[in-house]
Amino acid sequence: MLTGDELMTGDTVDSNSSYLSQSLKDFGVVPQSKRVVGDDLALLEESILELTSVSDVLVVNGGLGPTVDDLTALALANAAKEGLSRNADAMEHLEAWAKPRDFVLTESNLKQADLPSSCEVIPNPVGSAVGFKTELNHCLVICTPGVPYEFKRMVDEQVIPLIRQKGSLSAVFEITRLRLFGITESGLQDIVNNRFPDWPSQVNLGFRVQMPVIEVKLITQNDSALNELWTQKFQALFADYIIGKGDTSLPQALNLALLEKELVLTTAESCTGGAIAAAVTSEPGSSKVFQGGFVSYSNGIKHSALGVAEETLDNHGAVSQPVVLEMAAGALRHTKADIAVAISGIAGPDGGTEEKPVGLVWMAWGREDGLKARQFFLPVGRKAFQRTATAIAMDLVRREVMGLDTSVDYFSELKRQGSKLKK
Amino acid sequence: MLTGDELMTGDTVDSNSSYLSQSLKDFGVVPQSKRVVGDDLALLEESILELTSVSDVLVVNGGLGPTVDDLTALALANAAKEGLSRNADAMEHLEAWAKPRDFVLTESNLKQADLPSSCEVIPNPVGSAVGFKTELNHCLVICTPGVPYEFKRMVDEQVIPLIRQKGSLSAVFEITRLRLFGITESGLQDIVNNRFPDWPSQVNLGFRVQMPVIEVKLITQNDSALNELWTQKFQALFADYIIGKGDTSLPQALNLALLEKELVLTTAESCTGGAIAAAVTSEPGSSKVFQGGFVSYSNGIKHSALGVAEETLDNHGAVSQPVVLEMAAGALRHTKADIAVAISGIAGPDGGTEEKPVGLVWMAWGREDGLKARQFFLPVGRKAFQRTATAIAMDLVRREVMGLDTSVDYFSELKRQGSKLKK
Repeated sequence: MLTGDELMTGDTVDSNSSYLSQSLKDFGVVPQSKRVVGDDLALLEESILELTSVSDVLVVNGGLGPTVDDLTALALANAAKEGLSRNADAMEHLEAWAKPRDFVLTESNLKQADLPSSCEVIPNPVGSAVGFKTELNHCLVICTPGVPYEFKRMVDEQVIPLIRQKGSLSAVFEITRLRLFGITESGLQDIVNNRFPDWPSQVNLGFRVQMPVIEVKLITQNDSALNELWTQKFQALFADYIIGKGDTSLPQALNLALLEKELVLTTAESCTGGAIAAAVTSEPGSSKVFQGGFVSYSNGIKHSALGVAEETLDNHGAVSQPVVLEMAAGALRHTKADIAVAISGIAGPDGGTEEKPVGLVWMAWGREDGLKARQFFLPVGRKAFQRTATAIAMDLVRREVMGLDTSVDYFSELKRQGSKLKK
Repeated sequence: MLTGDELMTGDTVDSNSSYLSQSLKDFGVVPQSKRVVGDDLALLEESILELTSVSDVLVVNGGLGPTVDDLTALALANAAKEGLSRNADAMEHLEAWAKPRDFVLTESNLKQADLPSSCEVIPNPVGSAVGFKTELNHCLVICTPGVPYEFKRMVDEQVIPLIRQKGSLSAVFEITRLRLFGITESGLQDIVNNRFPDWPSQVNLGFRVQMPVIEVKLITQNDSALNELWTQKFQALFADYIIGKGDTSLPQALNLALLEKELVLTTAESCTGGAIAAAVTSEPGSSKVFQGGFVSYSNGIKHSALGVAEETLDNHGAVSQPVVLEMAAGALRHTKADIAVAISGIAGPDGGTEEKPVGLVWMAWGREDGLKARQFFLPVGRKAFQRTATAIAMDLVRREVMGLDTSVDYFSELKRQGSKLKK
């Protein structure tokens, strides 16, 4: 149950319930119902009564703050027909929270320590509001803070163990999370089906798109050896596509590969306008692998800043193999970096021709003595084009640095769409 | 009421209900309750019965597709105790949708035309699934497609008029939407309170943060002259902060200002790593106002690519007024652009010193003969630092180009936080 007028008016989009559901999914639990209730005492009380009477566990989110519209504790006290009383553990938490911040607790703040008398406090290591729990109608009620950062931490550390305990979900779950780039969900599933007809039902395999990468989870119960075995098989099959474990992002994977090989990257960007450099430098520590790059949007700058020959531009056009090769060479020459990536394409909506339609893009990458180039067709709208081209460029460099195949067939779905549009 | 297992498992985060609520808010309507129900026929039917008995309007979202887990029509038919029958209007829509796509309608597709017999079709101009509506328990039930793009269009064109009609909300609403940058919600509200003690209650003023800008709405009923009058007063007071109307973004506002004055921009970025150039070039038509820029992340590249003197770097350090001024001058010299913006700062988490802490950033901007520089302190974490610095840099150039004050006091809250952290 999610509380708050800001959810009813749509001022806030709820992502907390999705986080909780995703965490529960790892243990095979799917919530039975989900309600959003505004800051209305009677409605909150009624919903708590209704939901506790049909559920084993009710997680209430939000309404723990110090203001008059924070009503969760009072609604729960009313539903449980008990009073609010100042909770000593909650007081202790508030004081411990306020002290290092030189924060003087007001009467409103102290209200956060007034909890239904049967409640036990759930610690909140990162915020002023404590969580709390009680039993009502044989249902475990867990009240949690609305601030996503606080909520997520409490879900990981407290709520999930409580729910597993209540549901006798005592099995030990092994969860392996891998992140892949350059392949679609359905592509992944097809390959798994074809290559692993013997995939065991005890290894739950889940995919989730987190643009531009896909997260893959392998989940087993009480069998870490089985998890490890099938993780190894999966990793072997998709080795080139796997950019890392856990929450690895494309720029992280690229920077790590560069760092490992002690290589410095430079960029020469036209259609992505600096987005590759911005992504690489968005990561801490990027100065070890990146010292500078160029945004050469016009032909003039491609010539003046990168030394692309005017003849090459005239003869082949800015979106061509010779031009991106000269851009990459120019960037290497001017920065003394070890490896370059250059990109030139037609992001649209204008600027396309029959021969070179919107969505066409050339990329060059590699070291001075071994530059390679490839053409892609990404007819997906300007911003998606820029995002996708940036991601592919980073992945090509990652593959080059790691000695992996750079002729990979990225997003075959996209290409099919492309060939259709080209007709 | 939102339907779909993907919402219960958290695979999808619901943004549709927020869109509908925001659209209703303009007319003073706030939904009374919001439920999420998985793809379970009995639960869907029960929820429809329960919600129609306590509401005037029920909007059902999702479950209109061709697959077996799309159950909305059947659940509504069961709840209304009527059968499903093939709806002629829905069939016509499906055929019209399939034809230009060379799409052969399968039996599953045809299922989308089987609607509760009392239902009328609501056209869907952008997808295969039609919406539909009926009355049940004196409640208007409106069923809508789950695909956000289709849903939003149907809300704008069909759902809002239907709800207004049902609620006799026949007033003509004037809605003015403005976008501001560089001021906080609470700062805005304080200034309005102080400067407009006579702000009329008939002009509803709403704020919504859409990072990094704030959207301001002025809403009046049946009085467009009053809306215009107070919009003018508001615009006069916040002229410098207003980047545009409607959905204007910072890069759009900047590009438009450059286009109007026929000026070409160049960038010299250190700590933002190309993000300013990437933002400017994310907009269509940016080649008219931007031809190229530099990402000079290391001191070496600041010297070699932009001609920043080694002495300046040695004497003042990379994050200093003289260095950003030389970076800007170098970018102008190398690209022959009219106006430059240069930026150098300490994004963190490492690299700070007592004298130059993480969060410190210098920016220079202007034409060759009138370069200006300012220092900011943004101690907000690496990614937020880069986002905020990028936004401020764009806004400074916008103000410079438009002849507005560039000594503006951006985000005084941030500065306060800064001074606190600095202690």
